[in-house]
This record gives sequence, C-alpha cells and structure tokens, in this order.
Amino acid sequence: MLAASQTSGAYMTHSQLHVQLLLTGNEIMSGDTVDSNSAMIAQRLGELAIGVHRKVTVGDDVPLLQAELAAMTQEADLVIVNGGLGPTIDDLTAEILAAVAGVPLQEHPQAVAHLQQWCAKRNLTLNAANLKQAMLPAGATIVDNPVGSAVGFEMTVGRCRVICTPGVPGELRAMLDGIVADLATRLQRPTERSILRLQTFGLGESTAQQIITDEIPDWPPEVELGFRAGAPQMEIKLSINSAAAAGARQRCREHLQRLFGDHIIGEGDTTLAQRVLQLLRERDATLTTAESCTGGLIASQLTRVPGSSAGFHAGFVTYSNAIKQSVLGVREDTLARHGAVSEAVVREMALGALDRASADYAIAVSGIAGPDGGSPDKPVGSVWIAWGDSSHIRTRGLCWPVERTLFQTMIAAAGLDMIRRILSGIEEEPRYFGQRRMR
Amino acid sequence: MLAASQTSGAYMTHSQLHVQLLLTGNEIMSGDTVDSNSAMIAQRLGELAIGVHRKVTVGDDVPLLQAELAAMTQEADLVIVNGGLGPTIDDLTAEILAAVAGVPLQEHPQAVAHLQQWCAKRNLTLNAANLKQAMLPAGATIVDNPVGSAVGFEMTVGRCRVICTPGVPGELRAMLDGIVADLATRLQRPTERSILRLQTFGLGESTAQQIITDEIPDWPPEVELGFRAGAPQMEIKLSINSAAAAGARQRCREHLQRLFGDHIIGEGDTTLAQRVLQLLRERDATLTTAESCTGGLIASQLTRVPGSSAGFHAGFVTYSNAIKQSVLGVREDTLARHGAVSEAVVREMALGALDRASADYAIAVSGIAGPDGGSPDKPVGSVWIAWGDSSHIRTRGLCWPVERTLFQTMIAAAGLDMIRRILSGIEEEPRYFGQRRMR
Repeated sequence: MLAASQTSGAYMTHSQLHVQLLLTGNEIMSGDTVDSNSAMIAQRLGELAIGVHRKVTVGDDVPLLQAELAAMTQEADLVIVNGGLGPTIDDLTAEILAAVAGVPLQEHPQAVAHLQQWCAKRNLTLNAANLKQAMLPAGATIVDNPVGSAVGFEMTVGRCRVICTPGVPGELRAMLDGIVADLATRLQRPTERSILRLQTFGLGESTAQQIITDEIPDWPPEVELGFRAGAPQMEIKLSINSAAAAGARQRCREHLQRLFGDHIIGEGDTTLAQRVLQLLRERDATLTTAESCTGGLIASQLTRVPGSSAGFHAGFVTYSNAIKQSVLGVREDTLARHGAVSEAVVREMALGALDRASADYAIAVSGIAGPDGGSPDKPVGSVWIAWGDSSHIRTRGLCWPVERTLFQTMIAAAGLDMIRRILSGIEEEPRYFGQRRMR
Repeated sequence: MLAASQTSGAYMTHSQLHVQLLLTGNEIMSGDTVDSNSAMIAQRLGELAIGVHRKVTVGDDVPLLQAELAAMTQEADLVIVNGGLGPTIDDLTAEILAAVAGVPLQEHPQAVAHLQQWCAKRNLTLNAANLKQAMLPAGATIVDNPVGSAVGFEMTVGRCRVICTPGVPGELRAMLDGIVADLATRLQRPTERSILRLQTFGLGESTAQQIITDEIPDWPPEVELGFRAGAPQMEIKLSINSAAAAGARQRCREHLQRLFGDHIIGEGDTTLAQRVLQLLRERDATLTTAESCTGGLIASQLTRVPGSSAGFHAGFVTYSNAIKQSVLGVREDTLARHGAVSEAVVREMALGALDRASADYAIAVSGIAGPDGGSPDKPVGSVWIAWGDSSHIRTRGLCWPVERTLFQTMIAAAGLDMIRRILSGIEEEPRYFGQRRMR
C-alpha cells in the first residue's frame, strides 16, 4: 500500500482514490454531441492507475447540477467537472461549485489577467461576456488553460477535491497534461497497475470465454480478464494491480497463446492491416488487392497506416464482370462457366492482380454483400477468397450472412488475416473456416 | 398536454416523462471506448420530444450497478439500461435487474428460441456461454434484437419501466426502432415534433452559424436550429414542436438554400456517396476512381451503398509511381517533370481511369497524407484533385493539413463533392476552395 501524500489531505493512496466525473451540457444530453471528453479524462487517469468509479451527465440546469455535485463531494475524493466554463448564460459550473462549497463568486485577478492576455494576443477587446469567465468561487485555485480563454479552477469541498475543466476537447486535452502531472506528484510514486491488451480476429466473445472457462479452470484471480468485442477485431485485456502478479499474467498469456494463439494478431492497438504491413516490411515484400464485394475496403485499411506505401503499391476494385476481364485478365469463359462468385474467378483475380501490380502477395475477394443479389444457390453472405503468391494461390468459400457493411468489414479482415497467417507461418485453419463454411 | 396512456400505468404524458439512462461497461469507464450509444438513444427519444433527465455510467460491478438502478427506478418513469447483455461473465444486466426487481433469473423460452435461430442461421453451435443470454429476470418481456444474438428485455419495477438494450451499436440501433415505435404508441398520439436534418459538406459549424446570424437576424423562435459537426459531413437540424411552425421552417429551409445551398448534400442521413450514386443513376452514368493518397477510401465509400454496382464498376488504387504508369498510363515524363503530387499527374490519372474503366466520370487524387513525405514546397496536406468526364477534366490543388486519416476522409469527400456538383449543375466554387487553397 502506498503512503498518502502529505502535501494534500484530500488525496488518499491512488489505488483507493475514489474518483467521479460530472459532465454537463445540453448538447450531450440531447445526443447532438457524443461525449468523448470523459473517455479522454478516464484514459489519462488510467495512466496513473486511477480508475473512474462513476460518471454522471446532466444538462445545463442549476438544481440538477447542484444536487449531483453535492452528492459526489460526499462520496468521492476527487471530482472532475467537465463543461460549463464558457461565457454564455448556460455555463453554470462556477456558480454551482460556489453554491455547493457555500462561498460567494468573486472576480479572480489571475483569471482576469489570463483573459486580458488571451484577448490581447488575438487583437480582441475584452467584453462583459468574457469577464464572466473570471467570476470564480472564492478560494478557488486557477488551473491553467494553455489554449483557450476559460481558465480551469479547483477547490476542496469537505474532504473532496473538485477540479473544473473546459468542455472544448482541445482545451481539456491541454489542461489534462497539467492535472495529470500534478496528480502524479501528489500520489508520490508511479503505479504498479498494468494492462496487457491482445488483439484477436476470428474469435467471438462467447467462444473465447467458453474456451477459457473450459481450459483454464484455475485462472488466477489476480489477473483481471476483460473482453471488448469490436468489428472486426476482439480485444482481450489482462490487467494486474501489482508487479507481483506479472508472472501469473505471463502464464495466462502463454496459455491463451497455446489455446488460440493463431487468432492473436498482436498487442496494444495493433490492427490486421498494421500487422500485415509489418510482416511485409520484414520480408521486403509487397501485397496487392483485387476486390469485388469489399469494394476497396482492404486497400483503404492498408493505406490508413502511415508508411503503407512500402508494402502496398496497387489495388484493384473490379466490381463488374467486364472490369474483372479487362483490368485483371479474368477469362470470359471462367466467368460464364462458374459465375463471378466462384473459386475459379477469385483465383484468376489474384493471379491477374499479382501480374498487374508485380506484387509478391495478393488477396482477391468476390462475394454477395447484399441486401440484393443472392440466389438459393449463392445466398447473400456467400464469398470466395483467394490469397497467396504466384507459386501457390489458396482459396476458400465462406458464408457470412450479416448486414452489408459488417459483411464487408469481416471479409476484408478475413482476407488480411489469411495473408497474416501465411506470412507468420501459421498452418492451422482459423476457427471461422469451420463456423462460416459455405453451404 | 397529452393524456396519459391507459394501457400502461407506468408512463406519464411524454412531455413529463422522466427518463434516465444507465450505461454499463468497463471499457467505457476506462475510456477505451467512447460511448456513442447514449447519444443515439437520446436522439431517438428526441424524435418523440422526450428529453433525457440524467445519465449515469458505471463499470461492470454488481453493487454499483445495483445501487444506481435501484435509485433510478425510484426517481424515473423510464430507465433505459445499455450494455451488459453479452455472454461473458462481465455481462451483468439481467442479474442486476432481477436483484432490483426482487425476482429470480430464469431461462426465457423465447430468448432460447431466438438464440437457436440465430445460431442456426449462422451455422453455429449454441454453447453454454450463449445460453447465459437467455437467463432473464422472471416476468421480463423480450425486446426483439433483429441483428444480434442477445435479446433485449423490459419489465416494470414499482412505477418505473426498465428497458435493457445491447451495447453493440448496430444492435442497439436496430432495437431502438421497435422501442421508439412502441413508446410512440403508448404515448397515444404521434408527437407533433418534427426534425428536418440537412447534410452539408464543406461548411464549418461556426461559419454556418455566423452566416445565419448575419443573414437571418429575424430567425423565427419556433424553429430550433442545431448543428452536429462530423467528419466529413456537418448536419444542420431544424426542429419544430408544432405543425403550425411548418411554414416558418420551410421559409428557413429556403433561406438556407439561398445562402449556402450548394453545400447541402441532401436530407436525413444522405451521404455524399449515396447522393453521387443517385445522381449517376438518374443519368444512367458510371464513375471510376484513381486514388493515390486516399488509398481506396472513395471506392470503399461508394461500394458501402447497396446497389452501388449500377454506377461504379471499377476503381484503381495506384500508390506508387510505377503503378500510376503501368495501370493508368501516366507518362514517366510527366511524373519526372511535375512529381506525383501535381496537376498534370492527376489529370493523366483521371484520363487513364476513364479509359481503363470505360466510365463516364472520374475522380483522381494524389497528395501527401503524412505524417512523412512532406517538403517545404509540398507540405503534408498538399493534394491535387481531378474530376470530370473525358471532354472536360477539371483540377484543383488544395492544402488540408490535418492528421492522416482525417485528411483521407476529407479529401475523399471533396472528390465525391466535386462529382456531385457537376452532376447537379452547380457552377459555384465551394467555400473550402478558398479556405484550403494550396500554398
């Protein structure tokens, strides 16, 4: 257990620090604005292993805000208020904090000076609306805003520290640097909490949970297990609160690797496209794409990655049969005999793309994304994928009957996953080959 | 004032309906995920003129969730819980609601049937983890999930209706259609509130606000004006609470059309890609793309739209100079003399794509998405765009120095916007041509 900082009676040791967030703004309540500020605050606090206990969002309403803030200061050691610092009448934060603390509002000389400098720098005249931003609860301390006109401020109410921050994301971001640095100092030493995130593709949350429950019945309690299902990737999170648990976590990591390691793409935020580009770079190799139903999504995901030009030079979106022939050299006869969604066609698409792009590896896909275009024989969700190099093109038919854009997302990922697997020397077939078998 | 529904004692008139949201998920508390679901719920409720009073977010923690939900059911008429319906151990919503309602969990036959159908349709085997999703509070009613495995459920606790919804945004979206329709029925008559949403590209929120303030000083108070800035589009929302205000809104709509109508893409959720494909369909024409820095994003956005194959047959991602030559026929000499990011090169890319794809219209882009690759002469954010048909290719150099993926998003949109403008017969230059002028 860490010792509490002596310089601030309001803070407990960080692992016990009870933090709540109060978000305000009518535009957040109406859904016109998606609140990303609270995620930003939580992530920055996470760097210090400080978790957020609870967050409450209410509109710009004095009684509501006052009731929430009063309740929070009774429960929490630290409350961060976000929003309501601006110059307009619906900016209420200073007023609310003053009421909860039982102090008057008064003009804060340091805030006035900040406003004067801010206006002078921009050739603006300080007006009455601006000056409202200098009316702060008596006894509040200024929190510097390096980028905006509204200063932040903080004060202690009872045993709770309240920090008020601006709603403009860029201003909040800049201010958080100072707040986090200050917290780190007050908490005296760095955290032991550590989070290992594994990115996977092709495993459902329930499948992964089931495998772990069945195969690791003695999962150590000191290793927190979490899942975050996304499309296309699923994240598995292994968190520990003490360096002493690192060994246990490492054993869990190795166990997961043995159970379904071929589905693990990498750690942190690694995407399939990033991993594929990294593997290509290690081999000084290039990849090309021939996309029908994914319509450029694979190319787009590759080129989102900075530096992708090293491994990716050319991609082809060949949506019609005529273009499959003229651009990729798919034979008319092949199309006529097998149809556009067929093993023979994706094979020729892959070979054509390899040739046109002079690339080392290719992914080709052709399928029925829907909602129209399906037939009893080839229902919506049917797709053929080809991948490999000129010496060995592999193919697989899958049926992944989901909504159009999700289908495109999953099939683009499957194509990238196939290249990842051959570049990583993985021989096993992914689980989804069995689950998503073409009928 | 509307009369309370007689069929449901739990609901008051909609203008008085006290609604709270309870959001759950460790990934939201940690900031790993930005919660956009609560905004989606608030927006859908807003269509019925129902405001959200308060929202609380807590992690996947039984005592915390239970305390919040119990408190909410004391205060609110309607609580919507989001998240925690999945198959893993950190999905706690059913357990919490059962505890708050004082009823046991039991297997719900309708939920089991839904899971069986869901798995059968996907060729999956129903496992024990999946079946957990059918263990619901006794007495709960199923809320249909048209797209996912987890059903929603609702029940009345005291005087409060509690509706539990899935955390996967696509599933929530689908489920909200039914929930909103049901609420509208229970509230007995349709709301008169009506929201007109206009999609724009190339206007900033503050610019639009300034133009409206300057040019429409007598904006009618019965027409609520709202903005929702996104990338690449910005939405302008004109809301009225009474059919009597429809005429005033129509006059506002016409005024906006005169002020910056060339930046208005369409109504509702219309995207640039949808609008372009619609315009192409009306002309029985086709479009092709030759993308360097946007790397397939334009093609991908077009092919996300169902039925896009009518207007889009072929796209080319030509990331390297060699591929620009071999695939699109850009001359070596042009590349050597002007560089890849040049008017001459995008012009030849557009002409090459038109020829290879036998298309009527083309967009070609070549630029420096960064973070590397800039020079004093052509800094990161520099881009040339060409668009038009074989009789007239137009070009423009822009400088849009933002983060890589945002750059790709904005430039892909600008390319589509240029085609939209020529297909719509718009002669004016968009405002961003002036603001984003190449240096």
